[in-house]
Amino acid sequence: MSNNPLVIFTPSGKRGRFPVGTKVLDAARQLGVDLDSVCGGRGICSKCQITPMFGDFPKHGVNVRPDALSEWNAVEERYKSKRHLIDGRRLGCQATVQGDVIIDVPPESQVHKQVVRKRAEAREITLDVATRLYLVDVEQPDMHDPSGDLERLVAALREQWDLPELEADFSVLADLQKTLRKGNWQVTCAVHQGHNEERGHILQVWPGFFEGPLYGLAVDLGSTTIAAHLCDLDSGEVLASSGIMNPQIRFGEDLMSRVSYVMMNPGGHTEMSRVVREAMDALIGEVVAEAGIPRDLVMETVLVSNPVMHHLFLGLDPVELGQAPFALATANSLTLKAAEVGLTLHPQARLYYLPCIAGHVGADAAAVALSEAPYKSEDLVLIVDVGTNAEILLGNKERVLACSSPTGPAFEGAQISSGQRAAPGAIETVRIDPVTKEPRFRVIGCDLWSDEDGFAEATAQTGITGICGSGIIEVIAEMRMAGIVDAGGLIGSAAQVGTDRCIEDGRTHSYVLYDGREGDGPLITVTNGDIRAIQLAKAALYAGARLLMDKMGVDTVDRVTLAGAFGAHISPLHAMVLGMIPDVALDKVASAGNAAGTGARIALLNMGARAEIEQVVRDIEKIETAVEPRFQEHFVNASNIPNAVEPFPLLAEIAPLPDVSFNQKSEGSGGRRRRRR
Amino acid sequence: MSNNPLVIFTPSGKRGRFPVGTKVLDAARQLGVDLDSVCGGRGICSKCQITPMFGDFPKHGVNVRPDALSEWNAVEERYKSKRHLIDGRRLGCQATVQGDVIIDVPPESQVHKQVVRKRAEAREITLDVATRLYLVDVEQPDMHDPSGDLERLVAALREQWDLPELEADFSVLADLQKTLRKGNWQVTCAVHQGHNEERGHILQVWPGFFEGPLYGLAVDLGSTTIAAHLCDLDSGEVLASSGIMNPQIRFGEDLMSRVSYVMMNPGGHTEMSRVVREAMDALIGEVVAEAGIPRDLVMETVLVSNPVMHHLFLGLDPVELGQAPFALATANSLTLKAAEVGLTLHPQARLYYLPCIAGHVGADAAAVALSEAPYKSEDLVLIVDVGTNAEILLGNKERVLACSSPTGPAFEGAQISSGQRAAPGAIETVRIDPVTKEPRFRVIGCDLWSDEDGFAEATAQTGITGICGSGIIEVIAEMRMAGIVDAGGLIGSAAQVGTDRCIEDGRTHSYVLYDGREGDGPLITVTNGDIRAIQLAKAALYAGARLLMDKMGVDTVDRVTLAGAFGAHISPLHAMVLGMIPDVALDKVASAGNAAGTGARIALLNMGARAEIEQVVRDIEKIETAVEPRFQEHFVNASNIPNAVEPFPLLAEIAPLPDVSFNQKSEGSGGRRRRRR
Repeated sequence: MSNNPLVIFTPSGKRGRFPVGTKVLDAARQLGVDLDSVCGGRGICSKCQITPMFGDFPKHGVNVRPDALSEWNAVEERYKSKRHLIDGRRLGCQATVQGDVIIDVPPESQVHKQVVRKRAEAREITLDVATRLYLVDVEQPDMHDPSGDLERLVAALREQWDLPELEADFSVLADLQKTLRKGNWQVTCAVHQGHNEERGHILQVWPGFFEGPLYGLAVDLGSTTIAAHLCDLDSGEVLASSGIMNPQIRFGEDLMSRVSYVMMNPGGHTEMSRVVREAMDALIGEVVAEAGIPRDLVMETVLVSNPVMHHLFLGLDPVELGQAPFALATANSLTLKAAEVGLTLHPQARLYYLPCIAGHVGADAAAVALSEAPYKSEDLVLIVDVGTNAEILLGNKERVLACSSPTGPAFEGAQISSGQRAAPGAIETVRIDPVTKEPRFRVIGCDLWSDEDGFAEATAQTGITGICGSGIIEVIAEMRMAGIVDAGGLIGSAAQVGTDRCIEDGRTHSYVLYDGREGDGPLITVTNGDIRAIQLAKAALYAGARLLMDKMGVDTVDRVTLAGAFGAHISPLHAMVLGMIPDVALDKVASAGNAAGTGARIALLNMGARAEIEQVVRDIEKIETAVEPRFQEHFVNASNIPNAVEPFPLLAEIAPLPDVSFNQKSEGSGGRRRRRR
Repeated sequence: MSNNPLVIFTPSGKRGRFPVGTKVLDAARQLGVDLDSVCGGRGICSKCQITPMFGDFPKHGVNVRPDALSEWNAVEERYKSKRHLIDGRRLGCQATVQGDVIIDVPPESQVHKQVVRKRAEAREITLDVATRLYLVDVEQPDMHDPSGDLERLVAALREQWDLPELEADFSVLADLQKTLRKGNWQVTCAVHQGHNEERGHILQVWPGFFEGPLYGLAVDLGSTTIAAHLCDLDSGEVLASSGIMNPQIRFGEDLMSRVSYVMMNPGGHTEMSRVVREAMDALIGEVVAEAGIPRDLVMETVLVSNPVMHHLFLGLDPVELGQAPFALATANSLTLKAAEVGLTLHPQARLYYLPCIAGHVGADAAAVALSEAPYKSEDLVLIVDVGTNAEILLGNKERVLACSSPTGPAFEGAQISSGQRAAPGAIETVRIDPVTKEPRFRVIGCDLWSDEDGFAEATAQTGITGICGSGIIEVIAEMRMAGIVDAGGLIGSAAQVGTDRCIEDGRTHSYVLYDGREGDGPLITVTNGDIRAIQLAKAALYAGARLLMDKMGVDTVDRVTLAGAFGAHISPLHAMVLGMIPDVALDKVASAGNAAGTGARIALLNMGARAEIEQVVRDIEKIETAVEPRFQEHFVNASNIPNAVEPFPLLAEIAPLPDVSFNQKSEGSGGRRRRRR
């Protein structure tokens, strides 16, 4: 045995000695090397491509001779000439070991390959999907030992792939006999093995070799927008993404008004359920069309959403979520057939809904947790997903806390006099000169600043229509930095500030950000009411974060992650000037983009991640802000805008805020700040 | 501890000592005594009724004082005055142990009570149903420790009933929150725990206490008739039974013509599936109406049928069953939702389809095996279920063989000149005077013999319309015993036999059984063609039995059981005169009635029986007659009618058959008989 050739696989480093003539694929299997194969070594699927490395490898103590593998054969020649097999590659199921050899398994040939992600700091996604393809040869029926075709198929999957006793969905039976005979007793099966199911299921059977790939969908079901990402389950790549408005908006702009709708119209959730399912199905139609694939090859979908959307999508009455104690019908993850909830994918496609954390903290927050993995973090991270409700996670690998804070829709541009949704024409970035108090800005859909040449022409089509959520954060923060607003949130008069952009507005003042009235455009101002709305929203957010910090027994966090589409557009500096997030070094504030969508994609591509997040959700300590007296206290104390002293010492270094004060009332803010400690 | 009172339960004999004040129900649970309770000891369900026995019981070494149990209490008084609680009974959850006591658990209070059966020799059915009711108190939601209502319900079932982690069907979620609150956090759950499922399912939740009972259906899906039996799952009793014609008859009278229909009309099975499902659903409507219960309390149904009906009901193409190697799409048992196959029961009702034994030996044969349990028999039993195909089982507790034999429809009255289905007006019993050769008979729907007074009047309404399956057996056997037919199957001429009831009929003769032509009635004769058809059918049946006996290595069997509706009407003597079944003492031939339906009912009422029959079906040795040369041999040799000598020595003692012979050809029969050895 010790004279047998040595086979070393890279990158795993696994090694062993095998008799001359052993297939590379068999050697890999015996060593547990992650080498893909759908056809099981029949020279059909070309998934088991490997790269032999020749020459002297002192590090491995091996000299690989050119004849260390068997000669190039006809099967490989066929793949070479046809497709797939690039220079230097061999098929692991054809090449046999003839001498000591080093074999590299390229990423494409690994079942559990890593999916490339753009964010450098993001967690890795290792492909390990629930639904996979298997080619099998099924024994033919024998009159003398009768058994069902299905039972022989299941036996073949067990014997040739070591799969446990599988069940077949009822509808699979309908075509099974024809398919087996059409494939001359060789068929490819799509098998779903859920992480929490005792027995896997055969979802479909194709005659002969079916190459795939199969597809999956990750869907982030928001109150306003539904976003779907179509993934190739073989490569993990996103093939198409698209979004659609949530049609439930006509029943209520925000979640609470939708819950109220059901309270007023008992049974109204059924209609809301219908329209959102239809919209999602239409969205699925868009993404599959964009990717040019048939719907019925989408075998899996993963859903995340807040708890109210969770109930409304599943057809559950959400009224309990609208009142204490905010009881969910079910908090656990769900696995069901997508067809049960009206989605037209493969008829047997499974739907996995991530677990909800609590009545206010949904599967979307669980997805954020999965994406950002605070429970794996060495340092203490605060993760904020800003929306109508802000979901807040605080923790590290020792302990994770979660709560939801009722920020209201101000951050989304609602309740703001010139507010609007993020859309072309909306002001999203603002700078105010601290000396002249003159603003300049950019609008969505145009890369130019408003004081640059060509800006008017570039924005002529969309116009300048209002201020979006991130714009309102910036303009108020800039106003504070330019001394137009004091720490109490009051806008000074033209005389106090020294600019006629501060105009009288009833008993307070407003700041003119843009006056388009000459050209039939709007007058876009920031009113003191707008500032008040943002102060309330940011106070709720900050109070939620502080509450979790109290529970954790800390005064500072190591880093802050802003999640959500809104979080992706917020400038960390401005957020901190406003006091939305606790004081932290600016380079410790990162945007995670659409972390909920990413979490859904992770759960789609990696089964282990489903078990992981279910355990994490069980372990997370849930804090209910509504019944915490300290939340109210923090909320009251946090309504001021910081003046860059305590508790924001780090902010003071980078943005020393002017110590202006525009009336009696605002002078008390110092006192309030002290109470805040 | 040893001074604690002794509690002895009968009939189990289980005993133990318990502290004074222990509830009888708790003592029973700790000892594993089979004492029912739906409410878990809350004094609500009155299922745990027991009878304390007082006085001196030397056999048990106990003297039970009148105060051995606690005093009669208010809860018991309520049940006494209201209902249920008969004299001498106590509630096990109310009465507590005060001294040594003997407690009888009456049958109604046993969960695993035995179901009364009419046949003395029949196997016992112990009630152990898959779907049961449980009352639980569910913890209320807690904001500080959020969890779903469903998860708390599942926890309550685990903690209060020791049920494993259950799943809830998706639709249960829809009403769960309202139901929990309506019941003030006390609810009754219907829980299904399949014998082959890892996790049970909550099928429905009722607010507060729901008494039940729940219901189940056992359905025998025949090619000609569908029969349904509605059972009370609490008592095991059959509440209503009904039958309906299988509407697939319009696609083909027998199974093979239905398979041919699909061969000619690809996809035609879909339509056949639809009509049979609709008919079954209509039949279910009839039986629930007869029993006066709502459809949605039927929580389970068990189906049995032959393999072709199995496929046609499930929507599977049956063409593979029409040609060698007769491959089933699936042979294993199936558990699915009844709604999936269009049955309107409880929306979550489960359907259990017994396993098929082989391509020709279906779930109905498996049900016969379950009912007659040859695999538990000490002696060797031959079980014959006669229909278009005869299913034959031979075995004992060591070994069981099965085959199917293509008898064709002659036994059902088809292919017989005056044949008809068993219906009022059909001749079913015949006697022929061996001297005068004159017949007398009875028809279905009339208890009088044709030679009794009042017969003409009694049959005036129905008329005398033809001969049914059992009638044709009898008349031919009687003709043989009266010397009208010889061992070769030829009818003698009037001169040869000595009666002018033998009339010329082409080149052969016919026997006039009834001539109603004077009163515009039919002329009912038995032709030589009829005898030939029955000879072929009985030869197939006999050859199948002989083949199994060969495989078993025996020449005789200890007893014969005739199953099926037809088997219930066959006279064993006449069957043996015809040579349908092997020679055996007449008192060793029994009819099992509708054994397939009984087997379905056993599987409905006892979960263990499902596991049992699945194992039995795996173990049964399946013999395919179509490819056994010895079957052909036996078939050829068995076409004669016995002449009461070998191989029918036992028959010779009770029915010495006349040694007549009506032509040259028939004289050879002796030679053939010899070859049969």
